[in-house]
Amino acid sequence: MILTVTLNTALDITYRVRSLRPHASHRVSEVTERPGGKGLNVARVLAALGHEVTATGFAGGGTGRAVRERLAETRGVVDALVPVAGATRRTVAVVDELTGDTTQLNEPGPQITPAEWAAFLGTYADLLAGASAVALCGSLPPGVPVGAYAGLVRTARTIGVPVLLDTSGEPLRRGVAARPDIIKPNAEELAELTGSHEPLRATQDARRRGAHAVVASLGPGGLLAVTPEGHWRATPPARTHGNPTGAGDSAVAGLLSGLVEQLPWPERLSRAVALSTATVLSSTAGEFDRAVYSELLERAAVTPTAA
Amino acid sequence: MILTVTLNTALDITYRVRSLRPHASHRVSEVTERPGGKGLNVARVLAALGHEVTATGFAGGGTGRAVRERLAETRGVVDALVPVAGATRRTVAVVDELTGDTTQLNEPGPQITPAEWAAFLGTYADLLAGASAVALCGSLPPGVPVGAYAGLVRTARTIGVPVLLDTSGEPLRRGVAARPDIIKPNAEELAELTGSHEPLRATQDARRRGAHAVVASLGPGGLLAVTPEGHWRATPPARTHGNPTGAGDSAVAGLLSGLVEQLPWPERLSRAVALSTATVLSSTAGEFDRAVYSELLERAAVTPTAA
Repeated sequence: MILTVTLNTALDITYRVRSLRPHASHRVSEVTERPGGKGLNVARVLAALGHEVTATGFAGGGTGRAVRERLAETRGVVDALVPVAGATRRTVAVVDELTGDTTQLNEPGPQITPAEWAAFLGTYADLLAGASAVALCGSLPPGVPVGAYAGLVRTARTIGVPVLLDTSGEPLRRGVAARPDIIKPNAEELAELTGSHEPLRATQDARRRGAHAVVASLGPGGLLAVTPEGHWRATPPARTHGNPTGAGDSAVAGLLSGLVEQLPWPERLSRAVALSTATVLSSTAGEFDRAVYSELLERAAVTPTAA
Repeated sequence: MILTVTLNTALDITYRVRSLRPHASHRVSEVTERPGGKGLNVARVLAALGHEVTATGFAGGGTGRAVRERLAETRGVVDALVPVAGATRRTVAVVDELTGDTTQLNEPGPQITPAEWAAFLGTYADLLAGASAVALCGSLPPGVPVGAYAGLVRTARTIGVPVLLDTSGEPLRRGVAARPDIIKPNAEELAELTGSHEPLRATQDARRRGAHAVVASLGPGGLLAVTPEGHWRATPPARTHGNPTGAGDSAVAGLLSGLVEQLPWPERLSRAVALSTATVLSSTAGEFDRAVYSELLERAAVTPTAA
């Protein structure tokens, strides 16, 4: 079983409006809802790849109930979310039909009490015992200590479960120091962590800060991986246009999937870049087409790069 | 008991953001939620004035549950909402902290099935039997026939319950023809109904279309009432700056409150304009301060106007 952790789960709401204008009133023509938060997205992609997945983190309130109801409809994902008194946050993506642009509004998330955090730590330790790998994903809700991921990384390493960390800012900085097996920052997160906007230099610097392997996602530039076994660049087969929502989470799922199958790094990376590209090409944000993925997997180019 | 009907109830969500920019991602600093839809707002104000109020309409899904939970915390309002399979709509008001402007996103509402509409008609007839007055408020959710308000007006008139209609567009046009006791359009709704942008002429025209009394809410210009007993203009004691959300609903509550207490029209109008102004002055959208209301009630000016 692969474990994914989403401390700040979300009910992701998408609104379509004709044209978003500040200070105006808008009739929403279409509303869609899905369970969100990076770890839940990763879980969904892993399940689609045929893995057994357990999702933990927090859920509460009416929005948490909606997340769990929809998660129950996702085949292959076991719901091990810890109930909390506060309400799971919403994210609202407003899609402008005229321009195609998306405007994002993200609620901060519920206040987590010390007792709820302690309950989560117990659940996490129990679940880790049966996990082949764990992904720690996304932002921290209010009340969770900023060093939370560092602690969760250490717990996983202590019992020998490979751990991937995908977060940003101070939680990433502290988490990296606890020596996770893999981190997957995007260009902006990497620059914030290292102070360098030069991807190869920044990726190497992130490794020196503690990560065993760093896979930087560079948007249309693909993935840059600096690992103990070598350095590679994985590029998508073609320039793609589409909705990048969830592309990074699909890459995480590809990396984890390859890790538990003990594939060599180049194969993990082609899987990650093909999944990520298939997600961008999908008409539904965060979803991917299996046939498109299979075809992209054949064509993804992974090339060694100089250290 | 006063009955209020809200066919398209809503969970009203307010987001505060630093500055709303299309195509950007925003961290929401504050989230507030309250039960919404014009009829529920009217019910809350009537209850605050000491009236017994019953609120009916539709509620469904997690959002409907949230509306009902919050309504249960409102003293004096009896929840007689009819359950539906679809989810009650959300409205999202995004307040820009830099400019103070509000951008509004309104979901359309759940699809109401013919069986649900029939169930509502049964509930409505039962409740009307014990009502001293009824207010029919707001938009129609998908699936409800566009002539719905006309039918509801006729049912009320048949059993002699005074009926106030506050809606817009085609539902207002059809509803007016069924001869409601009072309509309370704003300037825009009145112009859409009559084709005239001249308030007095448009108000008189709306009476000719079937409404026994027309009270037009003209924003800072106050209220213009054309009734069988006379014509009046009610003006707020001072030019007010604030949030106009719910001001029209407070005016409806004032009119209904005065109607069931059999007050003469000028007193109903001063109540309506004072409540409306107190709502604009309140720091919380749709709420009002009782002391401010009492003070404004003393100072509201109601003057007869020429026909």
